Amino acid sequence: MTETNPPNTFSTLRLKRIAIDTYHENVAYLHRECEIYKAEGFQALSKIEVSSNSHRILASLNVVDDRNIVAPCELGLSEQSFDQLGLAEGTEVSVAHAEPPQSMEHVRAKLSGERLSQAQLKAIVSDIAENRYSKPEIAAFLVTVAEAGLDRDEILFLTRAMVESGHRLNWHDPIVVDKHCIGGIPGNRTSMIVVPIVAAYGLLCPKTSSRAITSPAGTADTMEVFAEVDLPPERLHEIVREEKGCLAWGGTARLAPVDDVLISVERPLNIDSQAQMVASILSKKVACGSTHLLIDIPTGPTAKVRSAREAIQLRKLFEYVGERMGLQVQIVITDGRQPIGRGIGPLLEAQDVMQVLQNAPDAPHDLREKSLQLAGRMIEFDTYVRGGEGYSIARDILDSGRALEKMNALIHAQGPQSRKWTLGALTHELTAKRSGYVAGIDNLALSRAARLAGAPMDKGSGVYVMKRIGDPVQAGEPLFRIHSQFPADMQFAIRWLNTHPVYRITDQPPASYSWL
Amino acid sequence: MTETNPPNTFSTLRLKRIAIDTYHENVAYLHRECEIYKAEGFQALSKIEVSSNSHRILASLNVVDDRNIVAPCELGLSEQSFDQLGLAEGTEVSVAHAEPPQSMEHVRAKLSGERLSQAQLKAIVSDIAENRYSKPEIAAFLVTVAEAGLDRDEILFLTRAMVESGHRLNWHDPIVVDKHCIGGIPGNRTSMIVVPIVAAYGLLCPKTSSRAITSPAGTADTMEVFAEVDLPPERLHEIVREEKGCLAWGGTARLAPVDDVLISVERPLNIDSQAQMVASILSKKVACGSTHLLIDIPTGPTAKVRSAREAIQLRKLFEYVGERMGLQVQIVITDGRQPIGRGIGPLLEAQDVMQVLQNAPDAPHDLREKSLQLAGRMIEFDTYVRGGEGYSIARDILDSGRALEKMNALIHAQGPQSRKWTLGALTHELTAKRSGYVAGIDNLALSRAARLAGAPMDKGSGVYVMKRIGDPVQAGEPLFRIHSQFPADMQFAIRWLNTHPVYRITDQPPASYSWL
Repeated sequence: MTETNPPNTFSTLRLKRIAIDTYHENVAYLHRECEIYKAEGFQALSKIEVSSNSHRILASLNVVDDRNIVAPCELGLSEQSFDQLGLAEGTEVSVAHAEPPQSMEHVRAKLSGERLSQAQLKAIVSDIAENRYSKPEIAAFLVTVAEAGLDRDEILFLTRAMVESGHRLNWHDPIVVDKHCIGGIPGNRTSMIVVPIVAAYGLLCPKTSSRAITSPAGTADTMEVFAEVDLPPERLHEIVREEKGCLAWGGTARLAPVDDVLISVERPLNIDSQAQMVASILSKKVACGSTHLLIDIPTGPTAKVRSAREAIQLRKLFEYVGERMGLQVQIVITDGRQPIGRGIGPLLEAQDVMQVLQNAPDAPHDLREKSLQLAGRMIEFDTYVRGGEGYSIARDILDSGRALEKMNALIHAQGPQSRKWTLGALTHELTAKRSGYVAGIDNLALSRAARLAGAPMDKGSGVYVMKRIGDPVQAGEPLFRIHSQFPADMQFAIRWLNTHPVYRITDQPPASYSWL
Repeated sequence: MTETNPPNTFSTLRLKRIAIDTYHENVAYLHRECEIYKAEGFQALSKIEVSSNSHRILASLNVVDDRNIVAPCELGLSEQSFDQLGLAEGTEVSVAHAEPPQSMEHVRAKLSGERLSQAQLKAIVSDIAENRYSKPEIAAFLVTVAEAGLDRDEILFLTRAMVESGHRLNWHDPIVVDKHCIGGIPGNRTSMIVVPIVAAYGLLCPKTSSRAITSPAGTADTMEVFAEVDLPPERLHEIVREEKGCLAWGGTARLAPVDDVLISVERPLNIDSQAQMVASILSKKVACGSTHLLIDIPTGPTAKVRSAREAIQLRKLFEYVGERMGLQVQIVITDGRQPIGRGIGPLLEAQDVMQVLQNAPDAPHDLREKSLQLAGRMIEFDTYVRGGEGYSIARDILDSGRALEKMNALIHAQGPQSRKWTLGALTHELTAKRSGYVAGIDNLALSRAARLAGAPMDKGSGVYVMKRIGDPVQAGEPLFRIHSQFPADMQFAIRWLNTHPVYRITDQPPASYSWL
């Protein structure tokens, strides 16, 4: 091999931080007149590797025609990519065409029907954790998992790899309890009652919650009516140590970060996969340091899980993977045929929760009962409690006002809200078209209406449910009320409801049902 | 319904063009302090809808912390998104959370095993054409198609929808011929010989070509050694009218634009799908106004198509869909066991092509023969030519120098290159480890080596093949030579070849083979 040519003279660029937040997606900016851009034949959106010594990241390329953003001799990186590369502005960096991540081979292997090993799933998760996957590659992985399926050992491997991708908390306590609902039921705000009860009982319950992404409210959105929920991890830990619990947003800690990345791509695609759900929930809980976990699987014709058969299948998956991850898992399959409580939307749900905690005579009975059932099962994680005694312990804590006291302590610790929200002043009642009995309520249509009305962004918007399954109704009697802040939102909600009837009314009352 | 609240007072923003090229992906930029950003609870990378009156686009959101890029009262759009919205800078625009495209429902239906109707595939393609799909959503569609498969009618519906998504040329000529090779064989630069022959014969052959994406050279990259290939559509049409043919890059016309979008996501994922390939090729050719199409399917153990059975299956798909799109389709299944010609890389391939066109005594025989076979079949699209006569007509045109003359006319019309490239001065020969006969050549490993050596970006880099299947070799005799411009590239290529042997040498000559 003879080397006659001079070395490439324009092979490095000066690093610049570009004040653009591109979230989980790394983006690099090169000026169109940049010599390297021209020489390498990069195209906008091609994936490049930016490196200097052992620092190295992958990024999608955006081509810039404005020297004020980047000059031709500079390489710009969006905020998170800059932080991830970990070098100072002005550092000389090299750029090159990036090779696709090696582990995409395993995704293609899965696509063609192969079973993935622990090492292969670990490689995929590591590559995602190191931002080597583009969003389309992540989508390809998710669709492949949804389509080709993962067996329970593959789910275990995926969960383990996801836990190992980030930090893991250790509370140095033999029992750290948590609960999780797989979601899908509007108004189902039990955590805000269960956590105060369980913390008041004395079990450590460091529950973090999510904000709504596709639903009208998440626990974090609803708790925010009363208190700050966006707390730094250190402050969260102090609160948990002092109060035994918290009701905060879990987005700031680097716990199972790959889960966050997968969710950010999966949610908009709206592709369901039991495998992904199990790995997501369990990896998060293990990373949070939980030892005991109660999982609520609401089941009903418009819930996420539609049949008892499917619920049991999911239960077994949670049990199989959870036990092997060192978690003690209890599953409750609950009635998911209709909303829980009366309010749907942050402020309306917060009012329901407060009524239950305050033992108000007109507090929604279903929300109280379900919360006591769940809290009771969690209290029974305490080995000193006999099976079946948890419920009455939970009820005593609630009835005595100790749960309300704990909630007030949590609000005080997290920081009470200075802002007071009011219910959306625009209201509209939907009435029964005929007389009879309520035989069915469509959770999905009702959630959608509450979202269109403005929830969760406008805290006071949403839906107030007035009739439940089994209730007799007269033609013209109101079934539920929409609250909204803006006329446009109200119109969207009403237009949606015109084509998506929520209530099914029959001549005979529906057959009575028991807890599933 | 009562309307008491004042209308949202910060509901519009001033439109600004941001000089960033984000290719097919629409990106919007909002300042972090923007009131709407805060009120709506957007997140970076969430999808938003930007609108004013009837103008409306979807875009991914980037959050900006630099007022020089966008001010809090502005909404920035990347270059293509700005053009697509079609409004002047300073126009007041509204932003809102974007709903996922409705047709994603059909993608999910396909994922769960349903068959898609013509209307459903049309809805998907329309949404993609209108940039309503994010890249992850496009990836989800492609993986779903690859995994769940499309039957031949679904492929037909997809092809039809893709043609309808863009412009369609009409040459007002009863016979407009074209050829296409499904790719995968290095050095296979037959178009640059076939087009001059067929155009010299007098058939209209408006062939546009692609640049290499994952291969060491595309026809456009190789033709660029001689002439400009990046021509505005109007100029291309003039050339085709005058010369009956062209050898230009096809990227500038808005022909089957959805195909370009799908390819930009599909290629990096490296996910194969016969359905997608058939729809892609045929939609492009129909949009280009072709009436007669010859498709070359090279078949061999390291080609895209690995077996005669698979080749025949693909042939039938092309025939079924092509005929129903009004195309007369002829398929040739060719020998894809090894490279065609000697050069791999733009300049090395250009030299092969010129030797054939010039009837040089040492011109690569296989390239000449394959080109004549293909040109002959295309000439037989002329109804006045008897079956079997095409080959000798093509040979006469080549031998008489009329093909060379036509090539020179095309170079002159497209604009001769002022820049002269030279072969990469760094060279390295790979030699036989043992004596025997060449029994196999790995197309994929050889292509990869040529790319690592610098092709197609460095026109003079690549591989020069010296031994072909069946040739006797002595231990130590050179098999092929690498050309490179930069030492680093040469090292990458050599390192790759150390672990990926290209030649298989056996004691006995391989069984003789005939054209597949």
